[in-house]
Amino acid sequence: MGPTALCPGTFDPVTNGHLDVIERASQHFDLLVVGVLENRSKDPLFSLDERLRMLRESVAGFGNVEVTSFAGLLADFANERGVSVIVKGLRAVSDFEYELQMAQMNHRLAGIDTFFISTNPVWSFLSSALIKEVARFGGDVSELVPPHVLARLTEKLGRS
Amino acid sequence: MGPTALCPGTFDPVTNGHLDVIERASQHFDLLVVGVLENRSKDPLFSLDERLRMLRESVAGFGNVEVTSFAGLLADFANERGVSVIVKGLRAVSDFEYELQMAQMNHRLAGIDTFFISTNPVWSFLSSALIKEVARFGGDVSELVPPHVLARLTEKLGRS
Amino acid sequence: MGPTALCPGTFDPVTNGHLDVIERASQHFDLLVVGVLENRSKDPLFSLDERLRMLRESVAGFGNVEVTSFAGLLADFANERGVSVIVKGLRAVSDFEYELQMAQMNHRLAGIDTFFISTNPVWSFLSSALIKEVARFGGDVSELVPPHVLARLTEKLGRS
Amino acid sequence: MGPTALCPGTFDPVTNGHLDVIERASQHFDLLVVGVLENRSKDPLFSLDERLRMLRESVAGFGNVEVTSFAGLLADFANERGVSVIVKGLRAVSDFEYELQMAQMNHRLAGIDTFFISTNPVWSFLSSALIKEVARFGGDVSELVPPHVLARLTEKLGRS
Amino acid sequence: MGPTALCPGTFDPVTNGHLDVIERASQHFDLLVVGVLENRSKDPLFSLDERLRMLRESVAGFGNVEVTSFAGLLADFANERGVSVIVKGLRAVSDFEYELQMAQMNHRLAGIDTFFISTNPVWSFLSSALIKEVARFGGDVSELVPPHVLARLTEKLGRS
Amino acid sequence: MGPTALCPGTFDPVTNGHLDVIERASQHFDLLVVGVLENRSKDPLFSLDERLRMLRESVAGFGNVEVTSFAGLLADFANERGVSVIVKGLRAVSDFEYELQMAQMNHRLAGIDTFFISTNPVWSFLSSALIKEVARFGGDVSELVPPHVLARLTEKLGRS
Repeated sequence: MGPTALCPGTFDPVTNGHLDVIERASQHFDLLVVGVLENRSKDPLFSLDERLRMLRESVAGFGNVEVTSFAGLLADFANERGVSVIVKGLRAVSDFEYELQMAQMNHRLAGIDTFFISTNPVWSFLSSALIKEVARFGGDVSELVPPHVLARLTEKLGRS
Repeated sequence: MGPTALCPGTFDPVTNGHLDVIERASQHFDLLVVGVLENRSKDPLFSLDERLRMLRESVAGFGNVEVTSFAGLLADFANERGVSVIVKGLRAVSDFEYELQMAQMNHRLAGIDTFFISTNPVWSFLSSALIKEVARFGGDVSELVPPHVLARLTEKLGRS
Repeated sequence: MGPTALCPGTFDPVTNGHLDVIERASQHFDLLVVGVLENRSKDPLFSLDERLRMLRESVAGFGNVEVTSFAGLLADFANERGVSVIVKGLRAVSDFEYELQMAQMNHRLAGIDTFFISTNPVWSFLSSALIKEVARFGGDVSELVPPHVLARLTEKLGRS
Repeated sequence: MGPTALCPGTFDPVTNGHLDVIERASQHFDLLVVGVLENRSKDPLFSLDERLRMLRESVAGFGNVEVTSFAGLLADFANERGVSVIVKGLRAVSDFEYELQMAQMNHRLAGIDTFFISTNPVWSFLSSALIKEVARFGGDVSELVPPHVLARLTEKLGRS
Repeated sequence: MGPTALCPGTFDPVTNGHLDVIERASQHFDLLVVGVLENRSKDPLFSLDERLRMLRESVAGFGNVEVTSFAGLLADFANERGVSVIVKGLRAVSDFEYELQMAQMNHRLAGIDTFFISTNPVWSFLSSALIKEVARFGGDVSELVPPHVLARLTEKLGRS
Repeated sequence: MGPTALCPGTFDPVTNGHLDVIERASQHFDLLVVGVLENRSKDPLFSLDERLRMLRESVAGFGNVEVTSFAGLLADFANERGVSVIVKGLRAVSDFEYELQMAQMNHRLAGIDTFFISTNPVWSFLSSALIKEVARFGGDVSELVPPHVLARLTEKLGRS
């Protein structure tokens, strides 16, 4: 069997920017595991279950993408799954510094390399946090997330 | 009637750096609306009313500046007021990335452009958060805010 | 008469990114002067005349944009033309630091403010230098410059 | 008596990166005061007492390093102690902007200069926050902190 | 046959930082093509032949690394070789912005993704230009390049 | 005798920003050596002799500042002079990355630490290159350099 890559995140909720990274990454590996961090400390809007379901629906068309959750250290999860590389999208300079720090820590903890993919510039201004903030006040985010995620956002935030 | 610009912020409290941006921006538009975000999530030191009053006192000398509050999406407020452009001060690289993200979102939501003005380098190290932190411990911020703001800071933080 | 803005550059050649900035800026001023710097030190690919002609052709549809050349200090040219504000596009952090330095110098020299407009993220990776490098080796830049600029690039670089 | 420098921080807990900065700074001054900020607002993992004890044990081998706590404004503490310069380690661009802001404020408040020392690149990815996060989930941080700090981390976080 | 990656550069000369990236990248692909750009415009210290020879000697121990030269567009060379991904090392923020721009252009020109690998922090301060500058003045770079590269640097720069 | 620091640069010509760094640095060391790099590769406007003379005139009022030239490696010169630390001003993020790289190389070559001082924000937009560019076109730089430097700039560039 060929190499497996891991794309970790909180995905609260998944955006078109995430899906661009997932789609491009999946083309370069036999299997891409999308790892959804439980992340209780961050108090997410969507439960772990909801986040997993939205992601699975979004990647249903990709044959080699598996969506699963993890808790604890990314490096431990990567080792358990026999992952050979971590894949992350990069949008901005501030992303870059934090992600570089995490990549160097993960290399030290588990000997695992991180590959960064630049996101499509069209999505460079997108983040889950910004989408929730806009949606909360009734702003139109219909072009920024898949339709089924839009539906759940609307339901959750009580807007029509 | 000529173009109207909108300068949004929390202004908790207004600083000499804000006033530098407001003064320079006001010279290029018929009307400059200073929009004070309610921002309940950030738990401001000064109430919305106090922030509005301090700003109005500070801009009393400018003939074409109006101070008003808003809640919800900046893009919605900009549309309601018939604003043609958003104006923001820029101090540092980290400001730049966040503000660029917001500018691109606001352009997408409401077709409104954002103009960034570089602040006078003399104020480049100023922020409302830093002023509150220094004033809280009795540090001298008298050259960093207008005198009436200094008085309210002293009153609020119980220092003489 | 209302305010005039100045959008300076070398435009060697004009790109779709430049035109996005020019179009958006022109909507906020009575007159937008596009100032083409002679820039002999940089040894441009296109002569000043060619750069002026390509720009004029590109902005023919905008009623309030004037294209003209200048030499010497931007601050002097801005003063001669009675310009009230300089407008620049911003793509990246490295742009930002250099442009901030220039903006602060121009404010000191001539009391003129600079407004920065964020470029459409779609064009965030574009620069005249990159376009020339790609075109020189026969790469396809047809979606990155107007058709008449593409024709002149092909002619100049001897590719079909 | 020669010059005294002050190296401030929360040190929750001290890392090998901090110790690299402290060691290098101590070589250039007669006395280096390591000032541990109480920092109640940040809700540290280790009490002020524990942080002081870990630091003192770590710098026992340096003859001219004194470890002490402070509350309130750094500028006030620096003045009380007759400190002539503040010394800080710098890892990344985001550090740099925040620290520059603080340095300019401290110069304005107390006329005190800040010297920045670049950390050894080997420790450039280290931070107390990251170490706590990794240790909390049982990750191996034994090469990133002194042995006695490792022991206290393990004890505190209930891992073996 | 599995996927092929391309690691492009001028390699004037190859450094321990380059070799760290090449070694780590080679572990994730069936074949890693190291593409040496002729780069006549940059007036390299070492001829294309010398750069190829130094690289081949350096990667002799890696079974799946091929060293070859190219001229013209990276995107064209990548297509010719049936490469599925470009791999680049990233050291600093300024690298990041330029490389992001190139990655977005290459995706547009040839549909090819770029994976960025963070370099080992130990080499984060290294560049071929800095090594040449130091070696030219007789500084010791013996820990920064392989021994056979050191020998050629010494020979070329006439130092013993 | 106490510690000696070294402040290196090309100083083509010295600016008020340089003098702010030199003045502040000189207060923290017994002797501050200002080292003027010959820098033939950069083709300076002023000869080494002219640059030395302008600096010496500028620092005449400081009792513990010595101005001298050097060629070759900074690390070698620092060792010859028995310097214990290199001092550099920092203005911007792009400065920071390059200077960090140099600091790490100098530490590796000669075991010498570099202390970075933040420049006064008033001078944050200043550079010798920008001053020459402005002066060349007759712009007013009289507040940015000492009077005797202004006189030499005017003489050299043939403006009145």
